[in-house]
Amino acid sequence: MGENRVKKIRVAVLGGSGYAGGELLRLLQLHGKVEVSLVTSEKWAGNPVTSAFPHLSCYRSHLFEPIEAEGAERRADVFLLALPHKTAKKAAARLLKAGKRVVDLSADFRLRDPSVYEAWYQTEHTERGLLRQSVYGLPEIYRSRIRKARLVANPGCYPTSAILALMPAIRKGLVIDKGIVIDSKSGVSGAGRSPQLAFLASEVSEGVRAYGLATHRHTPEIEQEVSALFGRKVTVDFTPHLIPMDRGILTTAYLRLSKAVSLEEVHEVYRRSYAKEPFVHVLPLGEYPLTKNVRGSNYCHIGLQVNRRTGTLLVVSAIDNLVKGAAGQAIHNMNLMLGFEETEGISGMGVFP
Amino acid sequence: MGENRVKKIRVAVLGGSGYAGGELLRLLQLHGKVEVSLVTSEKWAGNPVTSAFPHLSCYRSHLFEPIEAEGAERRADVFLLALPHKTAKKAAARLLKAGKRVVDLSADFRLRDPSVYEAWYQTEHTERGLLRQSVYGLPEIYRSRIRKARLVANPGCYPTSAILALMPAIRKGLVIDKGIVIDSKSGVSGAGRSPQLAFLASEVSEGVRAYGLATHRHTPEIEQEVSALFGRKVTVDFTPHLIPMDRGILTTAYLRLSKAVSLEEVHEVYRRSYAKEPFVHVLPLGEYPLTKNVRGSNYCHIGLQVNRRTGTLLVVSAIDNLVKGAAGQAIHNMNLMLGFEETEGISGMGVFP
Amino acid sequence: MGENRVKKIRVAVLGGSGYAGGELLRLLQLHGKVEVSLVTSEKWAGNPVTSAFPHLSCYRSHLFEPIEAEGAERRADVFLLALPHKTAKKAAARLLKAGKRVVDLSADFRLRDPSVYEAWYQTEHTERGLLRQSVYGLPEIYRSRIRKARLVANPGCYPTSAILALMPAIRKGLVIDKGIVIDSKSGVSGAGRSPQLAFLASEVSEGVRAYGLATHRHTPEIEQEVSALFGRKVTVDFTPHLIPMDRGILTTAYLRLSKAVSLEEVHEVYRRSYAKEPFVHVLPLGEYPLTKNVRGSNYCHIGLQVNRRTGTLLVVSAIDNLVKGAAGQAIHNMNLMLGFEETEGISGMGVFP
Amino acid sequence: MGENRVKKIRVAVLGGSGYAGGELLRLLQLHGKVEVSLVTSEKWAGNPVTSAFPHLSCYRSHLFEPIEAEGAERRADVFLLALPHKTAKKAAARLLKAGKRVVDLSADFRLRDPSVYEAWYQTEHTERGLLRQSVYGLPEIYRSRIRKARLVANPGCYPTSAILALMPAIRKGLVIDKGIVIDSKSGVSGAGRSPQLAFLASEVSEGVRAYGLATHRHTPEIEQEVSALFGRKVTVDFTPHLIPMDRGILTTAYLRLSKAVSLEEVHEVYRRSYAKEPFVHVLPLGEYPLTKNVRGSNYCHIGLQVNRRTGTLLVVSAIDNLVKGAAGQAIHNMNLMLGFEETEGISGMGVFP
Repeated sequence: MGENRVKKIRVAVLGGSGYAGGELLRLLQLHGKVEVSLVTSEKWAGNPVTSAFPHLSCYRSHLFEPIEAEGAERRADVFLLALPHKTAKKAAARLLKAGKRVVDLSADFRLRDPSVYEAWYQTEHTERGLLRQSVYGLPEIYRSRIRKARLVANPGCYPTSAILALMPAIRKGLVIDKGIVIDSKSGVSGAGRSPQLAFLASEVSEGVRAYGLATHRHTPEIEQEVSALFGRKVTVDFTPHLIPMDRGILTTAYLRLSKAVSLEEVHEVYRRSYAKEPFVHVLPLGEYPLTKNVRGSNYCHIGLQVNRRTGTLLVVSAIDNLVKGAAGQAIHNMNLMLGFEETEGISGMGVFP
Repeated sequence: MGENRVKKIRVAVLGGSGYAGGELLRLLQLHGKVEVSLVTSEKWAGNPVTSAFPHLSCYRSHLFEPIEAEGAERRADVFLLALPHKTAKKAAARLLKAGKRVVDLSADFRLRDPSVYEAWYQTEHTERGLLRQSVYGLPEIYRSRIRKARLVANPGCYPTSAILALMPAIRKGLVIDKGIVIDSKSGVSGAGRSPQLAFLASEVSEGVRAYGLATHRHTPEIEQEVSALFGRKVTVDFTPHLIPMDRGILTTAYLRLSKAVSLEEVHEVYRRSYAKEPFVHVLPLGEYPLTKNVRGSNYCHIGLQVNRRTGTLLVVSAIDNLVKGAAGQAIHNMNLMLGFEETEGISGMGVFP
Repeated sequence: MGENRVKKIRVAVLGGSGYAGGELLRLLQLHGKVEVSLVTSEKWAGNPVTSAFPHLSCYRSHLFEPIEAEGAERRADVFLLALPHKTAKKAAARLLKAGKRVVDLSADFRLRDPSVYEAWYQTEHTERGLLRQSVYGLPEIYRSRIRKARLVANPGCYPTSAILALMPAIRKGLVIDKGIVIDSKSGVSGAGRSPQLAFLASEVSEGVRAYGLATHRHTPEIEQEVSALFGRKVTVDFTPHLIPMDRGILTTAYLRLSKAVSLEEVHEVYRRSYAKEPFVHVLPLGEYPLTKNVRGSNYCHIGLQVNRRTGTLLVVSAIDNLVKGAAGQAIHNMNLMLGFEETEGISGMGVFP
Repeated sequence: MGENRVKKIRVAVLGGSGYAGGELLRLLQLHGKVEVSLVTSEKWAGNPVTSAFPHLSCYRSHLFEPIEAEGAERRADVFLLALPHKTAKKAAARLLKAGKRVVDLSADFRLRDPSVYEAWYQTEHTERGLLRQSVYGLPEIYRSRIRKARLVANPGCYPTSAILALMPAIRKGLVIDKGIVIDSKSGVSGAGRSPQLAFLASEVSEGVRAYGLATHRHTPEIEQEVSALFGRKVTVDFTPHLIPMDRGILTTAYLRLSKAVSLEEVHEVYRRSYAKEPFVHVLPLGEYPLTKNVRGSNYCHIGLQVNRRTGTLLVVSAIDNLVKGAAGQAIHNMNLMLGFEETEGISGMGVFP
């Protein structure tokens, strides 16, 4: 029997007690080719994973360890970093030096220009060398480079939803680079698991609000990729909103059409653009996405409309911020880096209702 | 004692079993100068109001009556119509002929140009004469005309939130008439009280979606008022979204600045513009509205931001769709028509949390 | 004009930045005979009330003050204490010494036997003299004593819902004093406004859990009043649950019938028992309460059923934990103490939906 | 390659457009040894599965068919019936005659005594012969009989949560057969997918209510199994409640202890009783279950407490009503009937948050 048993790749989850960390653990348990060999958390170090996450009963025998655990870098082959920015940078440097592969879910390696990082994050970028080696981990754009990467910067949740909404229209020249509005609505898990007044249930439920107007740190990340697609520097209006739900991001993008084009033509452009993508579904004409339909899954649903009266292309995209917007996309990137089937461990459908 | 007892004005609520009707009844109970003398509902006719609305225990002795109840037009002095469009038109005609005052919460008299009504509502406008007499019931713009009106068209919920967000900037020439984006997020009570699959709790909770893209019927209403403010015909991109909450509309408006202007200047313009308005609060600089803070109240909260990188003015407004967006504004209009204190019955603060 | 203007009683809210404090402020604004002259908060001292509660725009000119504010005890005629237990005791002592009337929303004066207090709250009761003077502020039982009291202990939210559910059946001898089960479900505002992991929106939404099994501190309060009704010491099983909603408590009580009795007879007992109570409504036969119907209001709705197969009387009661379970009942008590109309300021219906 | 490819068992889902049907489809996609060969729905017949369930994008090429589809009984090897009661009975008879295996998720074969069925469901039991062959599909009690069954009656959602909570205590004689109270709280997906006023989002959110007091049809099912465990006829008080959440049932059971026993002893009894069960987890001492921790999973979490003051054993159990309470348990039963690994397709952890 032994012969059939493939030796599993060892995976470490650093920062395993936040929501993205918990989601990595949940999804990795469904993955046939890897095993979780190390889980770290400063706050919960010494306690079982189930103390922070009673839902992860399959990890009853795993203990959280401190990130500086003795010989941590030898305990796994691939490291998934669900750490705060700045902490992530340092951990990545140490692990890459030890020859490991890293998928970093923080913002530390997403912005190619370190001065942009420093302006928006108000901290020095201490790993400029690594930054040059890193690949932006959006498989729908950078698949072939991710396959060869040792350090992948997993995209932010909002940028994932925005870039997937815009890419086909920009690539096909359907829209101009002015007046782009990206209005996003996110569930509250995106705010993380630290106790703060603003995210108490009584404050969040039954209300909606905008935040980070004109200042949200995902703005330069969106602009970086949108500029790359246009081939010139572009700015966008990006406004995130907090919605009384756990998970999900809905992005409504308003794009100025460069020419008269029918909805059917636009739909065909999007459909073709994503035809081979395992995780992006362009919905049938006349249907619009609901975040609940991708809840718990790695899918992105896209709906389209053309407003002829204003000359605007409307694109709506839905993802689960913790899966396609974080943990699922990280595993997708890991699968690409390790040569696995792309969908391994992350092919499950959304949990509805 | 009798001398001190002021005779109360009799008010009828037609269409009293929907959410707007229920809210009219709740608020009218708090009103010191009127009494509810008639409540109609086709579906619930013959049953006590509390059968449809157990929360309205003060109406235990009121029965729903059919709208065609014998002598209905003699049973009240003012009629608040929470009826479907088309039905409202006919009722209004009958009541005005009987010399009554009417506030119509439907869309039947909101659009000044009957051909626009006919294009968007796909039905003939059979009361063009009345339409010319009607006044659009947004007190912040039409207060003096409302005071003299016999027929007030109560604004739609989305238009109320959008127009209040835009008015000061347009009036002061801060923004241009192109590229206006109005992205609104509404609680589900706006969908009404008819059982439909899409509005079941299991379908709505924990998800967000856009709907009516480029086709929502509140679009021409917004454009009518925005055009009036600009003094020329303007089109806008308006997209409503369904949010998993009962009540509330948050509107995020993106306006192109006509000139360089600081946030402080814009804030001052808005603050002054609404300084005397009892129901519109411009929040302090740096604060943005949360719909939950106006829940159950007639207030509108407004927050502002300027994005210098894109030249965009961002305005966020929050209202309760059933109060300032429907029943509360109707009572405000009634108060104006009857010469009462404007805030009578509707001065309560939001119910938070 | 002066003649008509009644001088208003000055009211202080101590501990005004929590949810009960905010609700006191909201309701007091609707009260025709009092004015808020002092609001304290340690955490927010020096800031406007609207910084903690943007929904209370009518308090824009009120600042939170520290509880030890110079001459605080002279700044009001009545003091409503929304303070933590232990802190409340001390404040009450100081204020009563200054000749003021006090309604204490904490647990400090609810338990008549100080040794029971000390056992459940694990702290010494330092104000035993005051305890003897205090009255348990459930108007439906202690109305006449409340009228004469200078110190009223406002009941806990769970005990309010439980005692109102049980009282008529016990008084009429319908049930025995064994096997009483009280299963309560509460919205999360009952947990207060301090940031804690367990009450983050992402932890609370879409889930339900029991807590404090066999150990919740409202148990001795329920048992005290139930024992008083039975005339002998009685124990009960009380289990609270956390429900993903803001407000509301639903209590389902299981009582063993002492004799064969029909549902109609039980219903008549309850109906008569509460016939003159302004805030308790016994629903029609076959109807059961929904907490949402009393949201934001001071009402208690009660529904009944008899299970003949098991000999059990089922009583279901619904209140808003922040109103009838806290702030509204405190104002009811204040009205009684000051000889006002009982319903002044708290007669509003529930906000539904 | 052909040699390695195991031929998959064909599974039909009858009644595939309701929530349980959708959940069957979602879980079957994760199952390595079966393929879905037929999905029926009267209402959606002729439309793709994704029209009713956009989240199930993997079923884009499956069409809903009418249940009377030509040769339906030849189109699969196993039939999972998510049909209304009465309809299920007839379908089961036809399929068993054709030699197929059936798991029936309806109530038609759960009650062994057809007169009890007829009393509670007010309809004749037309398949008494089949009823005698059927097995009650709770694997934790009837595993060996399920393995040999051709017709399995999948338990109701409430009974699953109640029986798992009670079984160890009854089997070990820890509790008496009197005064049993079962207070259950369910998410709204349990009410099904038919549009009804009472289940609209605006009616359900932010409120909790009891329903079916003393009359809920799951009562005789609970009593049947509890009586079987006690070895004599037992009645229970069972009250279900509707909670503003999608999924999940929390059951709080109150059991009278037959003797003095410590919490530690009870915990050990439960722990041992479920030690080998793949889907039942007895939580560590002092922890209580949260339904959200089992959301989307087939797990049951159990917490325990002893109230020495009242002599009561408190047991709290949590399941997902659509998985362990319906679709997941049906697949568990199917796995047992077909000799598969028990956990195949249903081993995923809960989706939290």
